[in-house]
Amino acid sequence: MNDISNLVSELRTRLGAEGVLTGAELSARTAGIWRSDTIAAQALFRPANTTELAAVLKACNAVGQTVVTHGGLTGLAEGAIATDRDVVLSTERLDRIERIDPINRILVAESGVRLQAAQAAAAEHGLMLALDLGARGSCTLGGNAATNAGGNNVIRYGMAREQLLGLEAVLADGTVVSSLNTMLKNNSGYDLKHLFIGSEGTLGVITRLVFRLRPAWRTQETALIGVQSFGQLCELFGQLDETLGGTLTSFEVMWKSFYSLSCGDAPPLPPDFPFYVIVEALGSDPENDAERFLKVISQANEQGLLADVIVCKSGRERDAVWAIREGVEKTLEGGPAVIFDVSLPLSSMEGYVEDVFARLDADWAAAHQTVVFGHAGDGNLHLVVAAGDGSEGDRRRIESSVYEPLIRVGGSVSAEHGIGLEKKSWLKLCRDPAEITLMRTLKMALDPQGILNPGRIFDLLDADQDRQQ
Amino acid sequence: MNDISNLVSELRTRLGAEGVLTGAELSARTAGIWRSDTIAAQALFRPANTTELAAVLKACNAVGQTVVTHGGLTGLAEGAIATDRDVVLSTERLDRIERIDPINRILVAESGVRLQAAQAAAAEHGLMLALDLGARGSCTLGGNAATNAGGNNVIRYGMAREQLLGLEAVLADGTVVSSLNTMLKNNSGYDLKHLFIGSEGTLGVITRLVFRLRPAWRTQETALIGVQSFGQLCELFGQLDETLGGTLTSFEVMWKSFYSLSCGDAPPLPPDFPFYVIVEALGSDPENDAERFLKVISQANEQGLLADVIVCKSGRERDAVWAIREGVEKTLEGGPAVIFDVSLPLSSMEGYVEDVFARLDADWAAAHQTVVFGHAGDGNLHLVVAAGDGSEGDRRRIESSVYEPLIRVGGSVSAEHGIGLEKKSWLKLCRDPAEITLMRTLKMALDPQGILNPGRIFDLLDADQDRQQ
Repeated sequence: MNDISNLVSELRTRLGAEGVLTGAELSARTAGIWRSDTIAAQALFRPANTTELAAVLKACNAVGQTVVTHGGLTGLAEGAIATDRDVVLSTERLDRIERIDPINRILVAESGVRLQAAQAAAAEHGLMLALDLGARGSCTLGGNAATNAGGNNVIRYGMAREQLLGLEAVLADGTVVSSLNTMLKNNSGYDLKHLFIGSEGTLGVITRLVFRLRPAWRTQETALIGVQSFGQLCELFGQLDETLGGTLTSFEVMWKSFYSLSCGDAPPLPPDFPFYVIVEALGSDPENDAERFLKVISQANEQGLLADVIVCKSGRERDAVWAIREGVEKTLEGGPAVIFDVSLPLSSMEGYVEDVFARLDADWAAAHQTVVFGHAGDGNLHLVVAAGDGSEGDRRRIESSVYEPLIRVGGSVSAEHGIGLEKKSWLKLCRDPAEITLMRTLKMALDPQGILNPGRIFDLLDADQDRQQ
Repeated sequence: MNDISNLVSELRTRLGAEGVLTGAELSARTAGIWRSDTIAAQALFRPANTTELAAVLKACNAVGQTVVTHGGLTGLAEGAIATDRDVVLSTERLDRIERIDPINRILVAESGVRLQAAQAAAAEHGLMLALDLGARGSCTLGGNAATNAGGNNVIRYGMAREQLLGLEAVLADGTVVSSLNTMLKNNSGYDLKHLFIGSEGTLGVITRLVFRLRPAWRTQETALIGVQSFGQLCELFGQLDETLGGTLTSFEVMWKSFYSLSCGDAPPLPPDFPFYVIVEALGSDPENDAERFLKVISQANEQGLLADVIVCKSGRERDAVWAIREGVEKTLEGGPAVIFDVSLPLSSMEGYVEDVFARLDADWAAAHQTVVFGHAGDGNLHLVVAAGDGSEGDRRRIESSVYEPLIRVGGSVSAEHGIGLEKKSWLKLCRDPAEITLMRTLKMALDPQGILNPGRIFDLLDADQDRQQ
């Protein structure tokens, strides 16, 4: 406690009153935008720039004080949850878009900038920041990078990692590593940004980023398709990705149960097919793209790959189709549910989902409600399972049913949400001991006192992790 | 010496006679496919699989023996040059393509497989391994990954890094780290492959790889364009990337002097323009792509961006256009030349090249021959400078003239070739001290004895690097 009060007074001098929150100012804040609990930490530091942020880390490291970094608090893996032994470091005042260069097509910004604000700034120049996800209004660029965010455009543009050219990060001891590359190609030594992307704040705190921008799209073609078998769905994906050239941007699958629950009484296609797919292509040729999309869909239809199809003819129809996919909360009515984000090879998806259902049926005597949907083109499925009483034990049983069948198909317990604290005990299921040892080696090399986001992804000592299992 | 002979006999027992080369068998081999000198090392180990390769590294690490890894020996930065104090570890027997999965669109192969063989195997399934470069017949997948190879398709498909989903590598102490992810999305802990991609074999030896495959293209549209100003060239690039949707694959620029020398007596366009560009789009719509390409080129022409243009109407015309770009050796006739591979923002290229010429003109009283060309769409220029007598001193003077103007524009001394031994003393020009210190931290954590590709990219002790400057 004494350390924290010394730290608070030291950093109040350094950052000014605006830079430090304690007491009621802090304890009134929620721990996450989807959460009802509040922040348990006793101090929150809000540096105004990289130099101040480095001073915070240097001071914390000097006394071994653990630090949990906060971006937009939209994470789904308990990566930003702080205990009363931690302090919080927030990037909320690092909110400047520093530069948009329309010729070299880059955006340089501080890590606390909201994704939607960065998207809007790029759009003013006729360009696109291709990273996009539902939480765009709240999530920050720094959090997107630290968690390697995925989202809606991954088939075509990749994850956050593929869209970042460079970044600046501060190490645990306050060292500033500026690796603000702006070029598509730069093979001068190690590409250090990859240490900080997707490592969930455990190796450094990201302060500035360089994003690659793309030409904005001019046409948007969308279809909702019913499919009779998963084999046909796989064939459809391969064919559309080929015939739509570089323009296929979304290939979202919904299992029948998800579709029915989400559509309610007015399904645009009859709820009779085992699978539904939303296909979207973003193009640049307003004269021909609509006709081409129709042609490609017709070809697939002539080959018998489609059971039924609606090609959207207006923005209203498109919004209605996407609303089905976004209607996750309608599938959650009826008790505590666990949300999953797994990845696995496309060709293994059908068998995997059957496995999961067989286990859940056996465990809960069919008294569970489970829906399946996801970014199939990326190998990413989301499952929502409502069963049991919401207790830790019931949650663990549900997790076993969903995660264990991943072993056989070489899948991953996290496609895009990350591991955080929530999935830590399942990491061993998809990463082998040598991989986890190497992660620990990196952590020890960059943050030897273990002050940064402690216990996220893995524990420093194997014993800790084993104890939790 | 004794250590090496003990090592040789130990590993001969382990790998069999076929696994170890010494004496004349070894000293007859050239040090690189573009080089006339031979391998100076006293032993070369050729493990047949990952387990054997791990045994080689474990044995070398136990006695502190330095190891230089050999793939296809096509590198251009002296990354694979061994001294008589090193042993060589060759991946030449790790030459199996293990698996192509056409539904999940991946290729799994050992690291000694030639790029061209992997491309051909993918093509048999109607798929494309999008990494492509001139050395495709000799370079290996492991070398492509270790150097993060670039090449001809980077605008659209990225570097080797962006096309690799997973890999297996062996650490200095013989630990096998299998991180053979096959999915586009996998956020379960650190993405360890990035440690080994582009680190030029200094952190581990890559043994197996998982490449993402793409649909094969069906149409190829190519144009050669003369441009009057670099501003117009920048505008042309932005516009084509937008209007050609996802299909623009190459945007290669040649300065006038390169074009004239490479074309010789029969230039397809008059040699009167300051800049020439080869534009290529790879598409999937045989009915419409040609017409669309013509329309897009016509639009640019109506806007006054083109001084002259040829749209290729046959494979023969296309080959002739690409032969100009590939005609580097014609520009090299007339004495020892230094080849450069720099990257910098597109908008800075014209001023940068003027700077370089001003310095070279001042230094050599205009008695130099310098040509400029490159992958402008990627920010990557190649310069070939013929001046001086080929001595180390003259080379150093030329390097100063080309590299120092990069500082002002935030460029890099290596876009795609890497640093190796050749560019090590210039690394500080484009990476700051904190970055280089962090590279050393990683090296010390993963290879504490410094046995892997010693002295590539940077020296372990700052003093070594400073002494060389």
